Amino acid sequence: MIRFKNGRLLTLSSGCEVSCGEVWVEGDKIAFVGKPTDEQLKTASFEREIDLDGDLLMPAIKNAHTHSAMTFLRSYADDLPLQDWLFTQVFPMEAKLTGEDVYWFARLAILEYLTSGVSASFDMYFELDDYVRANIESGFRTVMCGAVSGGRENAKKLEERYLKYNGMHPLISFRLGFHAEYTAEYGLLEDIAALAEKYKAPVSTHNSETAKEVRECMEKYGKTPTALFDSLGIYNYGGAGFHCVHFTEEDMDIFANRGVYAVTCPCSNLKLASGIAPLTTMLERGVKLGIGTDGPASNNALDMFREMYLMAVLQKQRCNDAAAMPADVVLKTACCGSAHAMGLDDCDCIAPGKQADLIVIDLKKPSMQPEHNIPKNLIYSGSKENVKLTMVAGKVLYENGQFSVGEDAQRIYAKCAEHFDALCRR
Amino acid sequence: MIRFKNGRLLTLSSGCEVSCGEVWVEGDKIAFVGKPTDEQLKTASFEREIDLDGDLLMPAIKNAHTHSAMTFLRSYADDLPLQDWLFTQVFPMEAKLTGEDVYWFARLAILEYLTSGVSASFDMYFELDDYVRANIESGFRTVMCGAVSGGRENAKKLEERYLKYNGMHPLISFRLGFHAEYTAEYGLLEDIAALAEKYKAPVSTHNSETAKEVRECMEKYGKTPTALFDSLGIYNYGGAGFHCVHFTEEDMDIFANRGVYAVTCPCSNLKLASGIAPLTTMLERGVKLGIGTDGPASNNALDMFREMYLMAVLQKQRCNDAAAMPADVVLKTACCGSAHAMGLDDCDCIAPGKQADLIVIDLKKPSMQPEHNIPKNLIYSGSKENVKLTMVAGKVLYENGQFSVGEDAQRIYAKCAEHFDALCRR
Repeated sequence: MIRFKNGRLLTLSSGCEVSCGEVWVEGDKIAFVGKPTDEQLKTASFEREIDLDGDLLMPAIKNAHTHSAMTFLRSYADDLPLQDWLFTQVFPMEAKLTGEDVYWFARLAILEYLTSGVSASFDMYFELDDYVRANIESGFRTVMCGAVSGGRENAKKLEERYLKYNGMHPLISFRLGFHAEYTAEYGLLEDIAALAEKYKAPVSTHNSETAKEVRECMEKYGKTPTALFDSLGIYNYGGAGFHCVHFTEEDMDIFANRGVYAVTCPCSNLKLASGIAPLTTMLERGVKLGIGTDGPASNNALDMFREMYLMAVLQKQRCNDAAAMPADVVLKTACCGSAHAMGLDDCDCIAPGKQADLIVIDLKKPSMQPEHNIPKNLIYSGSKENVKLTMVAGKVLYENGQFSVGEDAQRIYAKCAEHFDALCRR
Repeated sequence: MIRFKNGRLLTLSSGCEVSCGEVWVEGDKIAFVGKPTDEQLKTASFEREIDLDGDLLMPAIKNAHTHSAMTFLRSYADDLPLQDWLFTQVFPMEAKLTGEDVYWFARLAILEYLTSGVSASFDMYFELDDYVRANIESGFRTVMCGAVSGGRENAKKLEERYLKYNGMHPLISFRLGFHAEYTAEYGLLEDIAALAEKYKAPVSTHNSETAKEVRECMEKYGKTPTALFDSLGIYNYGGAGFHCVHFTEEDMDIFANRGVYAVTCPCSNLKLASGIAPLTTMLERGVKLGIGTDGPASNNALDMFREMYLMAVLQKQRCNDAAAMPADVVLKTACCGSAHAMGLDDCDCIAPGKQADLIVIDLKKPSMQPEHNIPKNLIYSGSKENVKLTMVAGKVLYENGQFSVGEDAQRIYAKCAEHFDALCRR
């Protein structure tokens, strides 16, 4: 077992209180939480004891919306108008990507997740065999989200992937999904609804990211994307909507009634000038929230501390109320809500039997002082510099700036540069 | 001399290009920049050679608006409505502060600045003798901004401080200033204008942070704060306005004509729901910009990477244009513009004879890969984790997470906790 001792705990198993106690990890699971008796200590056998020295142990953060392999486009073409960026830079480059490219670019993203205290990603991209390999070889957890688009023949591909990737490895799962309403024909949407019914499964997709997307859907179907999906039965077993910036109250009620998660991506929405999601109104109407980075080409960091900060302060700005979206709600969204949105119900908090997806926060950095309120410090002045250790499924993958992901970080950088050069020449 | 070698340079002495070359530091100044000849190397004597191993050396960031000692209120009373926060939490606590309190709380802030690559602060607060001591003992650079308020008798105090603190120590300077229009009687403003004239000196103050401030000034004087100050001659020798969120085009023209810097504080403006400053319009009209964190009670971090990121993306959102406020403009604002706004003309870039206020950026973190565009990486995915070394006036004060500020960081934290407890009991 691995023993975390002499630290403080933010279990997030109910409220957002910091307590004292130990956590023991056996294999990939949390075996014990609390103050051990002398008897328990005598009979336990530890392969490693981690002395937290007063630092904080908490559940890892989950990134509930991303396109990991897009690291290759980071800072490649920023500060360009959106349409130029998409059509002259992003799409032509993506069209030339190979599986091996995706493998290395995803490995780079995984390194960055680990520095940001993230143990799992909800990823929508392609070349999935290579993407899966990057995650398994790194020891990282990922939930893939179906990314099909186009006409109804692609529902078959979606089902094949659903059956292929679920159950193949403890760190890997796959959820029904499609790219977005505006890239799907009506027949594909019908077939996805049929798959949801067949597998009694949630469906996740981009939803109402831009005003244009909602306007054009209204023109086409007389319904918002959310109302359209719901009318087809796509949300009958829940799911997740990515972005949800331009949402009506009716949309929110559908999400609340169907148990669909709204996954917010505040940095991407700001950088691409998409708008600010009405999160406080969603919460009032019973919508459950998750949070993600979106892809590194539109963000450009994979930094959940920046997302959490912006989730809080953008709502204060939007509501003109400094009390809006308090820190504890943001923290629970990032650790627990995101996990639930991804179907990782066993990764959401620190409790016996849960998956050991844990992080250690260095409270001895100036940004974490004074310790009036540790959760507020995390949200309002926390950053990646505070992440001391990231454990995924019981394995320490990042500690004190060093990675243990089965591959040297410098080699990953070099391979990414090499694959990007080859891509440009292709 | 200290020699930085085998790295890349972002000098910011003209454009925003990354080059190769060495930097040598002699005492508190930059002695050499470029590729040394064998002859130069043979005759040079180095007390330390820092092998950058491909990492980036660039000018340190300057924080052009802050209230450093307010670290004591970080996360003390967030998520409260603004008026409650100010009147029931901030003001009663501040009224009880002693000089010794300010000393320790400022020492904490200085640690955080160093982790964020900041070498100098433009600080507005009180208990200045103790504040100055905190900076000198830490080896940190500060420019104090007069913070007087109330009636005209306080102009005398301002002049005394101006004469006392300027010239007392190479790391310390003082600029004429006052808190804000809404806390100054008309007579005080007249006397400050007279001081500006007497010393041919710039004047800095909070300006147009909230819509309410501007509206009430219009009701009282029939002028915006900027027009009022200018009509009195306060800006005849330049200066800086802090925040400048609610600015008319006339205000901008006054700033442009008088050479007054608009110092933006994007995180604070967002968290306190004050608004988004019209920075792109200011640039179009010739206004020079600086950037700062504001105090840690309203931010809550002293993290210039977060400020730089938000400066860029909030303008994209405001202009509905992903091309607005490109990364190089933000970077030059934070390193050079802020320095000029504070009167630190010899700290703005890497060139022989300039002050050695330098930082090393770790390019071997995943957030800095791939290296398509290093300045864009710094702004869009950079964070404190990338700051490897901070040098102020030729002295390394922070390196690889360790401080060299003449006092143990853990002791500073303990003293801050102790002083906060005493403050609460007072």
